[in-house]
Amino acid sequence: MNLHDGFDTPVPTIVLAEEEFGDPGGKTAHGVLLHSEVFDARAVVDSESAGEHPADVLERADAPDVPIVPSVADALEAAPEAEALVIGVAPAGGELPDAWVSDIEAAMAAGCDVVSGLHTFLSEDEHWSSLADEHQVRIFDVRKPPGEDDLRVGDGAVDDVDADVVLTLGTDCAVGKRTTTFELYRAAKQSGLDAGWVATGQTGIMVGAQAGVVVDRVPADFVAGVVEDLVLSVAEAHDLVLVEGQASLTHRGYSGVTLGVLHGAWPDAVVLVDDPDRTRRTHFEQFPVEGVATEKALIEELSAASVAALSTWGDPSTESDRHGLPAVNVYDENGPEELLRTVGKHLEAGENAAGRE
Amino acid sequence: MNLHDGFDTPVPTIVLAEEEFGDPGGKTAHGVLLHSEVFDARAVVDSESAGEHPADVLERADAPDVPIVPSVADALEAAPEAEALVIGVAPAGGELPDAWVSDIEAAMAAGCDVVSGLHTFLSEDEHWSSLADEHQVRIFDVRKPPGEDDLRVGDGAVDDVDADVVLTLGTDCAVGKRTTTFELYRAAKQSGLDAGWVATGQTGIMVGAQAGVVVDRVPADFVAGVVEDLVLSVAEAHDLVLVEGQASLTHRGYSGVTLGVLHGAWPDAVVLVDDPDRTRRTHFEQFPVEGVATEKALIEELSAASVAALSTWGDPSTESDRHGLPAVNVYDENGPEELLRTVGKHLEAGENAAGRE
Repeated sequence: MNLHDGFDTPVPTIVLAEEEFGDPGGKTAHGVLLHSEVFDARAVVDSESAGEHPADVLERADAPDVPIVPSVADALEAAPEAEALVIGVAPAGGELPDAWVSDIEAAMAAGCDVVSGLHTFLSEDEHWSSLADEHQVRIFDVRKPPGEDDLRVGDGAVDDVDADVVLTLGTDCAVGKRTTTFELYRAAKQSGLDAGWVATGQTGIMVGAQAGVVVDRVPADFVAGVVEDLVLSVAEAHDLVLVEGQASLTHRGYSGVTLGVLHGAWPDAVVLVDDPDRTRRTHFEQFPVEGVATEKALIEELSAASVAALSTWGDPSTESDRHGLPAVNVYDENGPEELLRTVGKHLEAGENAAGRE
Repeated sequence: MNLHDGFDTPVPTIVLAEEEFGDPGGKTAHGVLLHSEVFDARAVVDSESAGEHPADVLERADAPDVPIVPSVADALEAAPEAEALVIGVAPAGGELPDAWVSDIEAAMAAGCDVVSGLHTFLSEDEHWSSLADEHQVRIFDVRKPPGEDDLRVGDGAVDDVDADVVLTLGTDCAVGKRTTTFELYRAAKQSGLDAGWVATGQTGIMVGAQAGVVVDRVPADFVAGVVEDLVLSVAEAHDLVLVEGQASLTHRGYSGVTLGVLHGAWPDAVVLVDDPDRTRRTHFEQFPVEGVATEKALIEELSAASVAALSTWGDPSTESDRHGLPAVNVYDENGPEELLRTVGKHLEAGENAAGRE
């Protein structure tokens, strides 16, 4: 899915982040607010942080100062120009609460397309699809995988791309793979490179990646194949393809997804994201974080790429010494530019080495 | 799926293996004929090898001497007592040919339950489900994954099982993981051990594993979780749980499935299956087989288990010397028993080492 194709961008948007805008669970909403090239957030719905400023809630000075309001009705009043509603959080338990149902109905009645990251697909529900027809709006279920007819097993077709492919992996979930990928993309564009990126999760798609599939919803057999197809489609139009990875090779819950993405992207270089203070896994306290050295060794054993750099939450100089790798914090000033330069040098060294073979 | 629960076993069965009985593509049919504890094959349908003997077609002296006939109509005549039709091959291209449609209809009209390994699910098709109602027969779609409500992400619950868990992995697809797992199971039962096994592919389910899911059809996020649940269910009733792995950690098409199974089963020991003459992957000539040393190192880096033994297609003594591992050919006389003894010693050594810690 490439949401650029669906919208005349940037589209004025209401972001639904009920009860989660101040929490890590709101990361899709945060991504849309901070980074989206498709959606221009004009109001955030969250009854818990209503009345506050995004910069304060997110503790990020660069967050756009849009109103946080308690309901979609208030958002439609604050931003009557809105043409889209992005559902950027998942309700606890999975079921749509009644309040959300009336919120989504109100947005559709006001002419908003609905972009949903919900696990249940609104477009497959009679109520929502007929309501969309009635109001002549569209539903984008971002998590919905391609149909079986559009899926295939990975076969190495990705080996033929001319573009450089850089994959972002991590030592855990929720460690900043999407952010690092996006910051590399933004730095590449700013430096005049012809870059595109591949999202493998819902936030990346909503932020505006040139191609994306929520790969963890794809039948396991087809993960590498779908990632190959995503890389191939972006490589057709760009010289540099940045790919968002998922989870970690040593994460016992999700590792299969990670390896499918690594083997599907078959990158020329890997950037590894790490939080040096994290010793247990996010949402999986029972599992330890195995760390940079283990992940790096596995990545290099399991692919033809090597780790070009660390994207660290810690002090870059300390982490670089500790792991014998270039390390950058993408939140530091010029961090993304430095990470891009490091990756560029690594790719160049690889190409020179290949040329000598 | 545990087909023992669905049938009064062994059930007299017709095995549909049209155009494939003599080929590797017929491996599900071969498994059902040679090993099934659920289905007692009384006739095989394959117009290409009709009239020959299974022992000659399969080049296996132990194959039961049932008739190979050109059509289901002939099979129903040769085995009027049949109560099940097993569809043990997939049609080229995926679409059901007209001839198969009438074959399946004939079997249902004759009172046979249909056990299907097809990619399309007969039970979800109006034609087939109403026909099943009409003839009061059942449809088992073996490839159909559990519903989303029955799926979960792996969380390490499998760490609490008391049973010993032994996983069979391989250096490629179609290298004998299912056969090795089954032979270990059979040897364990014969030696009086309380063993059960977990299938992760359709053949294993049809052969009669105590629990099974075609894991490559499960959304990628849930592979480890579904394997944990399979192991937990078999471990409840047995002391030794043998788990069939899939593909290979270095197989770029399917590796994610392999790692999900390894992390879901979280075994106490691994048996690695290898064909020493294979240098390129089955159906993926573009990919090299990485081999025993690489797979072993990755398995041991990615899990808490070590490789207890090789199940080799080659000469056990040569392969044992070459890799510094016990090696057994399960097709040799007493091969399965020797492999079981080797694995048993490995488990015992592991438990003694753990006891000393």
